[in-house]
Amino acid sequence: MDDERKMSITGAMAMNGGNGHYSYALNSSYQKGVIVAAMDMIKEALPATVDLNHLSSSSPNPIIRIADFGCSTGLTSIQAIETIIRCLLDLIKPVEQPQSRTLEFQAILNDLPTNDFNTLFADLPPERRRYYVAAAPGSFHGRLLPSASLHLAYSSCALHWLSRVPQEILDKSSRAWNGERIHYASSPAEVVGAYSAQFGRDMEAFLSARAEEMVGEGLIFMVVPGEPDLVHDSRTTMGSELELLGSCLVDMAKAGAVSKAKVESFNVPIYFPSRKELQQVIGRNRFFDIRKIQTSSHPKMHVALSTPESLSLLYRAVSEGLLLHHFGDELIIDDLFHRFSLKAAKSPFFLKPESHETITFFVVLKRKKSEENMQ
Amino acid sequence: MDDERKMSITGAMAMNGGNGHYSYALNSSYQKGVIVAAMDMIKEALPATVDLNHLSSSSPNPIIRIADFGCSTGLTSIQAIETIIRCLLDLIKPVEQPQSRTLEFQAILNDLPTNDFNTLFADLPPERRRYYVAAAPGSFHGRLLPSASLHLAYSSCALHWLSRVPQEILDKSSRAWNGERIHYASSPAEVVGAYSAQFGRDMEAFLSARAEEMVGEGLIFMVVPGEPDLVHDSRTTMGSELELLGSCLVDMAKAGAVSKAKVESFNVPIYFPSRKELQQVIGRNRFFDIRKIQTSSHPKMHVALSTPESLSLLYRAVSEGLLLHHFGDELIIDDLFHRFSLKAAKSPFFLKPESHETITFFVVLKRKKSEENMQ
Repeated sequence: MDDERKMSITGAMAMNGGNGHYSYALNSSYQKGVIVAAMDMIKEALPATVDLNHLSSSSPNPIIRIADFGCSTGLTSIQAIETIIRCLLDLIKPVEQPQSRTLEFQAILNDLPTNDFNTLFADLPPERRRYYVAAAPGSFHGRLLPSASLHLAYSSCALHWLSRVPQEILDKSSRAWNGERIHYASSPAEVVGAYSAQFGRDMEAFLSARAEEMVGEGLIFMVVPGEPDLVHDSRTTMGSELELLGSCLVDMAKAGAVSKAKVESFNVPIYFPSRKELQQVIGRNRFFDIRKIQTSSHPKMHVALSTPESLSLLYRAVSEGLLLHHFGDELIIDDLFHRFSLKAAKSPFFLKPESHETITFFVVLKRKKSEENMQ
Repeated sequence: MDDERKMSITGAMAMNGGNGHYSYALNSSYQKGVIVAAMDMIKEALPATVDLNHLSSSSPNPIIRIADFGCSTGLTSIQAIETIIRCLLDLIKPVEQPQSRTLEFQAILNDLPTNDFNTLFADLPPERRRYYVAAAPGSFHGRLLPSASLHLAYSSCALHWLSRVPQEILDKSSRAWNGERIHYASSPAEVVGAYSAQFGRDMEAFLSARAEEMVGEGLIFMVVPGEPDLVHDSRTTMGSELELLGSCLVDMAKAGAVSKAKVESFNVPIYFPSRKELQQVIGRNRFFDIRKIQTSSHPKMHVALSTPESLSLLYRAVSEGLLLHHFGDELIIDDLFHRFSLKAAKSPFFLKPESHETITFFVVLKRKKSEENMQ
């Protein structure tokens, strides 16, 4: 029961709130770069995939609802939605009839209820032209919005978060037991398999919920951090840094600063799929057609994060909630990330930055018309 | 310019957040009592005023959206919406056809962006049957939602908050200059008039925004704290306590604890209309018919707030944001509310509790069909 509670850690997964030194808002320059690239891809993909007349006629009032799933804090989320709205308005002009009514937009910002919505709301642009803002707190692995009420969905750097740590990797009697590792980067195949299966279930849950919420021909744009299909030994990956963080926890356990059992039961519920795997997982769903999967390589993470401290701040902003939830007061978080900075400085990330390449997949999905999935 | 900024204090009007000693959530038992009474009135009024078939057919999907304007924190808001949903579901049963689709509900929680939405979301019931939750941050004196997307609106103990302090009462050259008083209870008629005019403008702005957001025949239920048409000298009112708070600030200015000029420029933007005035103000709008105005008298405020400290905590929970916004660090808030407790203990509120009677107006408005207000 206690284990069960620990595995349902969605409440602890929100990024660090506020606008301070350790906040996600201040320490997400890497993610912002990824999103800027994604915006260009959306601008390119939108005209070819959207049937605006169809979308806006699906409601008696011309309202187009656009949601960001996993919005976190900062301006990034609303700026992405504003980009989509501007892009749609450009598309309307040629088709707009004189008698057509004025389109309205609603931006729906989703994240876990523990996300710092107060900071998100405080940072919203005071002037919001032609769109209204609503927030939908809750897990995007379940239903959040009324049926057939959503026209466009967007999710950036969020879907790699799993809804839970896969149960079997915490089970000492299982072959998938992950020991004192906190991620799967150098784990046995069974551990990787357990993570992968959880990712498959979570993506299915996400798509099933969105399928009910979206109108026919509605579009999903998603940016999913991933791994190359083959990871060469000479390459470092996002997983390498999580391994580094894990080794700091092991050091702290050896020094008696945290309990070994707590380290063994801690795992980061993040999974980076390969392109092939992502395509298979999405391909299994009955509701959406894949219109595009594009791989982007970001070889310059070490430029956005040019010092060990900035890398450490990024990992702290995304994992502090999770760590404190698991370890409680026992863990001196400053100590952990100080150790992380020291190790990172000597890691391939800084010693061989050219070998550090992160991958994201930009995916465009189109909701089938509801008749097509009724059988 | 500085004065202009100070008057636009909507950002500071949110109730105290969190769940702690000074929070609104813990110090709103009086308001909760008012809302419980209002729920009974909604249950009674709803069947006679709602045309559910009409409402649910106004959308291609059977979604009914219910918004609370001025939700603050705590469970009160969502419980009120749950009551309305249960009431609607009871009404549906007799009319539901076998082929009718399943109705869905969306609860929309509105308050200022500075409201503590984090606490509100954390306290939401984890199991939410048949309804989805969204938040719409912003001032309810302006547009918040897309056109014709809202079916039922509710607002309890919120519409007496003005959007700003009336400009003229801060102008030393005006006959409406309010001096060192912080409210209008014992002010010249010009001050009362300025407050009253602001209330009229604000109510008009609220109704105009809702008129655009609501579907034809949509309903508004509002609970507005007010004053009896004639206030006898022997009666104390909500305004009396604000006067008491003002006298504490004057004492502090005399003792050099705050500046006299700051006290003179501080006014609480709250107005308690009489029934006649409320009826006139609402009657001026072109969009809604008044279906009901019912006066409720709550003679037992001193029972919910049985000690000077609990009365002090209520006034602190609702005004601390406003006070700190205006006075800044200069004001020792503990000192102010300690003085308030001492004065309250010797005030008619506790010496003659039987003469303390608060009044609320329960109002039901029905949106005219849009054709009716097109000319």
